[in-house]
Amino acid sequence: MSFEELVELIEKKEYWALKEELSLLNEADIAEYMDELNTKDTLLVFRLLGKEKAALVFAEFSKATQNEIAAGITEGELATVMEDLSFDDMIDALGDLPSNLVQKLIAKATPEKRKMINQFLGYPEDSAGSIMTIEFVKLRKKMTVGEALAHIKETGLERETVYTNYITDSSNHLEGIISLRKLVISESDEVLEDIMDIEVVYVHTDDDQEEVASIFNKYGYLALPVVDSEHRLTGIITVDDILDIIQEEATEDFERMAAISPSDDEYLDLSPFGHALKRLPWLFILMISATLTGRIIQNYEDALAKMTILTSFIPMLMDTGGNTGSQSSTLVIRGLALGELDFDDFFKVIWMEFRTSIIVALLLALVNYFRLLVFSQVAPMVALTVSLALVLTVVTAKLIGALLPMVALKLKTDPAIMAGPLITTIVDATSLMGYFYLATKLLKL
Amino acid sequence: MSFEELVELIEKKEYWALKEELSLLNEADIAEYMDELNTKDTLLVFRLLGKEKAALVFAEFSKATQNEIAAGITEGELATVMEDLSFDDMIDALGDLPSNLVQKLIAKATPEKRKMINQFLGYPEDSAGSIMTIEFVKLRKKMTVGEALAHIKETGLERETVYTNYITDSSNHLEGIISLRKLVISESDEVLEDIMDIEVVYVHTDDDQEEVASIFNKYGYLALPVVDSEHRLTGIITVDDILDIIQEEATEDFERMAAISPSDDEYLDLSPFGHALKRLPWLFILMISATLTGRIIQNYEDALAKMTILTSFIPMLMDTGGNTGSQSSTLVIRGLALGELDFDDFFKVIWMEFRTSIIVALLLALVNYFRLLVFSQVAPMVALTVSLALVLTVVTAKLIGALLPMVALKLKTDPAIMAGPLITTIVDATSLMGYFYLATKLLKL
Repeated sequence: MSFEELVELIEKKEYWALKEELSLLNEADIAEYMDELNTKDTLLVFRLLGKEKAALVFAEFSKATQNEIAAGITEGELATVMEDLSFDDMIDALGDLPSNLVQKLIAKATPEKRKMINQFLGYPEDSAGSIMTIEFVKLRKKMTVGEALAHIKETGLERETVYTNYITDSSNHLEGIISLRKLVISESDEVLEDIMDIEVVYVHTDDDQEEVASIFNKYGYLALPVVDSEHRLTGIITVDDILDIIQEEATEDFERMAAISPSDDEYLDLSPFGHALKRLPWLFILMISATLTGRIIQNYEDALAKMTILTSFIPMLMDTGGNTGSQSSTLVIRGLALGELDFDDFFKVIWMEFRTSIIVALLLALVNYFRLLVFSQVAPMVALTVSLALVLTVVTAKLIGALLPMVALKLKTDPAIMAGPLITTIVDATSLMGYFYLATKLLKL
Repeated sequence: MSFEELVELIEKKEYWALKEELSLLNEADIAEYMDELNTKDTLLVFRLLGKEKAALVFAEFSKATQNEIAAGITEGELATVMEDLSFDDMIDALGDLPSNLVQKLIAKATPEKRKMINQFLGYPEDSAGSIMTIEFVKLRKKMTVGEALAHIKETGLERETVYTNYITDSSNHLEGIISLRKLVISESDEVLEDIMDIEVVYVHTDDDQEEVASIFNKYGYLALPVVDSEHRLTGIITVDDILDIIQEEATEDFERMAAISPSDDEYLDLSPFGHALKRLPWLFILMISATLTGRIIQNYEDALAKMTILTSFIPMLMDTGGNTGSQSSTLVIRGLALGELDFDDFFKVIWMEFRTSIIVALLLALVNYFRLLVFSQVAPMVALTVSLALVLTVVTAKLIGALLPMVALKLKTDPAIMAGPLITTIVDATSLMGYFYLATKLLKL
């Protein structure tokens, strides 16, 4: 069913046919369609979905649509949806709903489940604990393959959580793992103890999700066990959630690097005030610090008045400095994020940037020198001054651009903060000082 | 075994102990350790790995280390490694090796395999065909669950490729899929036809890998089938490869947005010349276009000479314009990349940016006006001129920043190219023109 057909069925009020068509669609497709509908039709379609499908679709929605639905259906209906969500999706949804609603929903759960929900809601944001699920299969090492398969069949768990199974002792300590593949290809009388994998890679509940993502990236696993401080198995994280996290973390870096305060909201879900709020803090800081550069120009007012043409090269120097500094900071920040670089590579990186900057600076300056002589017909001495200032700008910009993210890492802040805009401001000041110093000396102003 | 212990064992030449320790380590860890060793020790360790482990470790290496190893071992040894690699990893490795070596390796393969290798090497770079693997299980719809499980046990495939199994007809057309979970929880005499999933999401061999990644993201699958133009099943793509691709695509966008020509090389694997080559093209273009801004300043030389203080506000205006434009372009580019925005949202985005820019511009201008009056003690009329120019700059920058990536999408080029550096250059010119126009009118210069 295409989106147009869906709209047609709604308009014609052919709800039976609509219900039929919806049952054939994948939950991700339904969620995508519903995002385009108005609130009234969204609720209508949502109520036409079966109980289980409604939960699956709900899990696919953006935060904004989840809140829209939660506000439109009754508390009873919402409680049913919550019950049918997988545990990690439920915790996710609860984290985003208004807190009075969350309290009411939790009150409806069984005491045991309520305790667990509160425990999960208590994990710090973006920690392994906050993204794990409790839906997985626990086995004992004395079980045979046949018993293990029977147990899996009994629990009948959904989706990918069943492909890696966890062997724990009576105190819930993680002892080993075994994949469903291994169980299927082994003889049914073999004992798990003899065939399970005991070199288990695991994460802790309080590990950062970015760290977890890089472990998935490194080992290529489908799921990772999460243990608490006493090495007890408390949950698992599956790779499908990691895809989202990798995108989220990249978005956060993109935003930080463009002087935006990161948030989880989708572009169109924010109001203009929300957008302004994300963007203003850094703009204020950077506007004020750009004043410093203005001061430098004021100090050389007399020199500039004597030779006004010098002013016209300021944009080119500033832009080139900003661009070349951004290049270095971007490469270093990305290298750090992907684990290709770490703080131990400090001197290697500085040395690499130094040599690169010399090559780049000399070529740019050479082109610039002849361009000024031939096309702009400025005096050779002026062309030389501008070109030398360009060399200075490029070399400083590249060194500062590479240095600051590494320093941020050492100071345990996000290297992405030390990106383009901040570096541009610093490079502006140093490059203009160099330019005016060279001008006063070489042109004797 | 820690890296230090590894080095110690190498130094003491305790190769038996080393071999023992290596057999206990995960291939990803071994590859990470070996990346820190010199060529001699890398080759030594590589030869101590068992035949199969060597292949697994080889697949984990960066391009540069793969080439280093390939150059250090004999052709016979390399052929053995290639044989033990999984098919997609082998194709990957062949794609990066020197072509004369590739020819020799292909010559050693069986005619059938040779044909397949050549077919796979022929898929366009970054297409679904170039990242798929041929290691998966094909079943027939008339099989029972018991027969299917027996067949899977027989083929004994490695790792995650076995969790989704594909049902094809005699001409290899894809008819349905069934998960290993479903097989395990079903009764052994059920027939696949009755329980298989026929609503199959698939991709084509020539689809772009970015598209493939977004399908994985949307549906959360572990694997996707790849079909050719006649709907014949030619391979599958597994989610672990998608993790790498998402990172790769994000890196490409980061690089494009920082005016760098993207490449697959890790930071430290490139020479300074390689780095310079990635960075120079855009720097040249942007340096030349910044000249335009210089020309604008030259046109207003007389006005500037009359009131030199005006020059000192140029950096603040330029930087704020650049930063605020980058914010908008980054949010739009990222929204497009994640599928949160598309071209249909054109007017919504422009309207959002317009309202946001008004809020941001007025607040920045207000702060700026009083800052200039109180702290810098400039004339009220000058402060007004600068503040109005700031409003103009912010509004234009945000509109251009949002507009250009959308236009790029429409023109079927990568929106990421229309990012910060390019927009900065355009915004510089428009904002300075506005500034000087306002100055000549308001200050009557």
